[in-house]
Amino acid sequence: MKKIEGLIAAVFTPFHADGSLNKDMIPSLVNKLVNDGVKGIFVCGSNGEGPNMTTAERMEVTEAFISAVNKRMLVIVHVGHSSIAESKQLAAHAAAQGADAFASVAAFYFKPLHVQNLVDCMAAIASAAPALPFYYYHIPHLTGVGMDMIEFLTLAGSRIPNLAGLKYTAATIYEYQSCLNAFEGKFDILYGLDELLLPALSVGARAAIGSTYTFAAPLYYKVIAAFDNGDLVAARKHQAYMVEVIRVMLRFPPIPAQKAIMKMLGWDLGPARLPLVTLTDAQYKELYDALNRLSFFEQLPAANKLHSV
Amino acid sequence: MKKIEGLIAAVFTPFHADGSLNKDMIPSLVNKLVNDGVKGIFVCGSNGEGPNMTTAERMEVTEAFISAVNKRMLVIVHVGHSSIAESKQLAAHAAAQGADAFASVAAFYFKPLHVQNLVDCMAAIASAAPALPFYYYHIPHLTGVGMDMIEFLTLAGSRIPNLAGLKYTAATIYEYQSCLNAFEGKFDILYGLDELLLPALSVGARAAIGSTYTFAAPLYYKVIAAFDNGDLVAARKHQAYMVEVIRVMLRFPPIPAQKAIMKMLGWDLGPARLPLVTLTDAQYKELYDALNRLSFFEQLPAANKLHSV
Amino acid sequence: MKKIEGLIAAVFTPFHADGSLNKDMIPSLVNKLVNDGVKGIFVCGSNGEGPNMTTAERMEVTEAFISAVNKRMLVIVHVGHSSIAESKQLAAHAAAQGADAFASVAAFYFKPLHVQNLVDCMAAIASAAPALPFYYYHIPHLTGVGMDMIEFLTLAGSRIPNLAGLKYTAATIYEYQSCLNAFEGKFDILYGLDELLLPALSVGARAAIGSTYTFAAPLYYKVIAAFDNGDLVAARKHQAYMVEVIRVMLRFPPIPAQKAIMKMLGWDLGPARLPLVTLTDAQYKELYDALNRLSFFEQLPAANKLHSV
Amino acid sequence: MKKIEGLIAAVFTPFHADGSLNKDMIPSLVNKLVNDGVKGIFVCGSNGEGPNMTTAERMEVTEAFISAVNKRMLVIVHVGHSSIAESKQLAAHAAAQGADAFASVAAFYFKPLHVQNLVDCMAAIASAAPALPFYYYHIPHLTGVGMDMIEFLTLAGSRIPNLAGLKYTAATIYEYQSCLNAFEGKFDILYGLDELLLPALSVGARAAIGSTYTFAAPLYYKVIAAFDNGDLVAARKHQAYMVEVIRVMLRFPPIPAQKAIMKMLGWDLGPARLPLVTLTDAQYKELYDALNRLSFFEQLPAANKLHSV
Repeated sequence: MKKIEGLIAAVFTPFHADGSLNKDMIPSLVNKLVNDGVKGIFVCGSNGEGPNMTTAERMEVTEAFISAVNKRMLVIVHVGHSSIAESKQLAAHAAAQGADAFASVAAFYFKPLHVQNLVDCMAAIASAAPALPFYYYHIPHLTGVGMDMIEFLTLAGSRIPNLAGLKYTAATIYEYQSCLNAFEGKFDILYGLDELLLPALSVGARAAIGSTYTFAAPLYYKVIAAFDNGDLVAARKHQAYMVEVIRVMLRFPPIPAQKAIMKMLGWDLGPARLPLVTLTDAQYKELYDALNRLSFFEQLPAANKLHSV
Repeated sequence: MKKIEGLIAAVFTPFHADGSLNKDMIPSLVNKLVNDGVKGIFVCGSNGEGPNMTTAERMEVTEAFISAVNKRMLVIVHVGHSSIAESKQLAAHAAAQGADAFASVAAFYFKPLHVQNLVDCMAAIASAAPALPFYYYHIPHLTGVGMDMIEFLTLAGSRIPNLAGLKYTAATIYEYQSCLNAFEGKFDILYGLDELLLPALSVGARAAIGSTYTFAAPLYYKVIAAFDNGDLVAARKHQAYMVEVIRVMLRFPPIPAQKAIMKMLGWDLGPARLPLVTLTDAQYKELYDALNRLSFFEQLPAANKLHSV
Repeated sequence: MKKIEGLIAAVFTPFHADGSLNKDMIPSLVNKLVNDGVKGIFVCGSNGEGPNMTTAERMEVTEAFISAVNKRMLVIVHVGHSSIAESKQLAAHAAAQGADAFASVAAFYFKPLHVQNLVDCMAAIASAAPALPFYYYHIPHLTGVGMDMIEFLTLAGSRIPNLAGLKYTAATIYEYQSCLNAFEGKFDILYGLDELLLPALSVGARAAIGSTYTFAAPLYYKVIAAFDNGDLVAARKHQAYMVEVIRVMLRFPPIPAQKAIMKMLGWDLGPARLPLVTLTDAQYKELYDALNRLSFFEQLPAANKLHSV
Repeated sequence: MKKIEGLIAAVFTPFHADGSLNKDMIPSLVNKLVNDGVKGIFVCGSNGEGPNMTTAERMEVTEAFISAVNKRMLVIVHVGHSSIAESKQLAAHAAAQGADAFASVAAFYFKPLHVQNLVDCMAAIASAAPALPFYYYHIPHLTGVGMDMIEFLTLAGSRIPNLAGLKYTAATIYEYQSCLNAFEGKFDILYGLDELLLPALSVGARAAIGSTYTFAAPLYYKVIAAFDNGDLVAARKHQAYMVEVIRVMLRFPPIPAQKAIMKMLGWDLGPARLPLVTLTDAQYKELYDALNRLSFFEQLPAANKLHSV
């Protein structure tokens, strides 16, 4: 697989009000993302509540997204689990269903203690779908596993034949830059903090995965376009705008807040699952009003909304 | 279920050298524990590598232990998982198979943010086996969830009809003491740090769950016997001895080190699963020699060993 | 110096309402502690807000306490500082003024990275008062320095001629027990968490330093007396009572809350210094009422109060 | 004071081999920095080992730097201390000696618990030199105090008349960008992680404070020049180079490693003070060789070195 360019949306999983899967929402959500120019989706990741679902549900969701996408963009399936044996089943399933790539966080109950240990874990998972590109998903603030990524690439590069690169979700952009450049730029290092897209571009990022690309990709493409045109002032302005949107959003728990935003735009993806807590009506209104004060809904192109909000 | 008295062994899960389940070892391991006077077992917990196994494997292991125990002691099944939906399946299965009680850690990928949130999660899990006593398993150093346990009991007591109590695995014995006394001593609060058994007894503990009770229960019963006889000097001496044994053990990763000790005693429970790493031969010998210098194997009664070591 | 037996009060520093030192309160405070049967005081420690004062103020406070005590009990002076050079000045001063012993936390801006590094720091400080017994003050939750204390005693024992022992302020009583027993019980290991006094006694503690011994020593002496009489039930009851008192107190920031309790008893020690924040009137009343509901003030002997509360 | 533009060197404090101050080195060090085009120095900060020195020494060092600079660049004096009373003395002294600005970290033994508490602390310190611009020094990884900086500016802006801005030392560049823009760009927000200079520039940084600007300012000015010329490819290349240099440096403790680099360049600033540990000869050589492999010393202009290395 050649390196990814552009934005990958870390999609949310739609649930019914009773918490069961709502696969009927998936085709419409996928069409929206295609319209938004998103280059791919990241399925069953943190934002997709992968770890909140059963293995059977994760497989169902994966199948539904792959089917809805129907080759119009990339599908990367997250298979991380506290059990490596479960991860391997998820990986084999993703490959069999036609995913384009897969990824995994570090085990998060018992945690790897050093880089070699982490590499051994990832090698076990990656081996379950040897023909599919594999990305290690580095997200230390959620997993508590914060290894040196250059060391990881060094050890994993020779050990994991299908290692494509990293989903790098941390603010340490100096290390991200090193990873981009390491081994003559061999690896595909996807950047994962949306609020730092411009700084990541400044050091050479060409692709990013993030949850807010599900509802605001067109606004981030303005950042990228301005940056590519050498107009830093405009890029900075567009980025600053999204930083403020995210700041407003983060007054609330992030995944439920983003599901609320999707609902405001016309895609009711339902509640989040415990331990995540869905926004109350009052919180929903508070978030809506705060976004309105930023004229957020007017910024979005019509294609980004199912109905006027 | 009336309150538990005595020691519950947090048993290890036997694997073959290739990492697959080795259920054939379970009957012999259970017989040993019955001989040791252990009052029950805690299955698929941290030490049992529950989070390292698939749901199917956890069910298999649970069935094998329940069958081998055959009502000779209590079986408490741990059902904690990052997915509450999976936990509920494990809980219903445990009940159907005849477990005596079940327990769960807090969700550990996404984590509860406040006590009510934690109670809501535990209520969901507990409801899947409403006729079975449920224990919340408080182990903040592994899950990163360190809520106030008095608040938990206050909120959960009225919310979870089958709440039996806590497995309390933390050094904060003042809070443990408060939990023992709260609500007129209504809850069963099992203490979970073996190296603090005597301090826990001093504030009123009557039962404890721990991994080292799998291989050294008779030595801890000496602590309890001396304590119950009012001989604090002897109790302290016996406890100090186990503190030194554990200190030696903790030069190595704890679960692999304990599986090594079990092998020294004649029960080869196989390797630990990634991300845990089995002791090397050199480490095994170093641990063996260190335990020998403490005359550890001579302290154990013959019934505690399959063969002379 | 032979080993300490009994309770050492970690005294608060009296300030005027404007935040300046109020040394006039010191003699009365000291007399109260002598009446309470306290065996010594710990001056300018965490509870004494040592790190909140200037070096000059710390010296003044030290002199005032030593003078007021006038050999009726022990005076241990805390000299910990981010600058070891300042610590040495404080140590030399304490010795010159007639302190009985001194103690220091680990440097807390830049932090020692390993045990030898910590020993080197403590050796530098201890050398500034070579004739005075020195205690290392282990309090990882405040300093962020959580080294293995057996390794510390091993390395420091031969390196620091005047090392008397440790002030051990952590809930890890198994390590505390190891320290008590290490090197044939050579070191004096003072226990530092008041809410765990009984568990510490159970493993062999004979002395403790703590802030609540400033206002409630007679109640803790009941714990010790019952324990020494072999009446664990009574000891447990007395300890449980203080655990509840401390639990009430910890609804508020601990040092300001304890200064408030002292004021309730008749010793107005003034506000705490920034970044600590003094209780508001409403908080003061809430704390007072909560303690009253526990009949706290009736539990204290008259000599423990300046006036009836 | 108008906003700062360019690089501020967080200078190291020169010590003799015995650990005493070596003020004789200061004029030559200052002349080097003037030659390097540095716009100012930050004195007695973390890298200057302020917290390792006595108050008297900090004042001496401050005086020596102000005198050596003699108005050729800015002098910002760091006055952070665990004791706010000491901080105020340092602030008054800095003002009296002619410093251009001053700064303080949060108190780091007892720590502020919320933003208002932090603002109250900083207001107390800032009031001791009311005519001098004051910067709050945000460095959560060292102080453990990680408050929301927009809230800080909001509350502090009206409370601290001489608040100039922040020294922002964290990788969270989205918040840095918000701070730059907040209140119509009123505050001067100096960026503090050298390895992220380019990403900071991308969001609008115009000034930065850092330790490596003491020995490599000309190389960072290449980053700035390329960035200002719209040549992102070159800027990225120059930044990547310094990221690699810092990565090599961080194999060792950072302050001692940088003092070693200064020695390699001809300025022997002596050892670091405990708890910091000076590089061994073998480590020094390893660092020297690693920098040589990066051709580091050839990259620096001659004026950056006292002698050829």
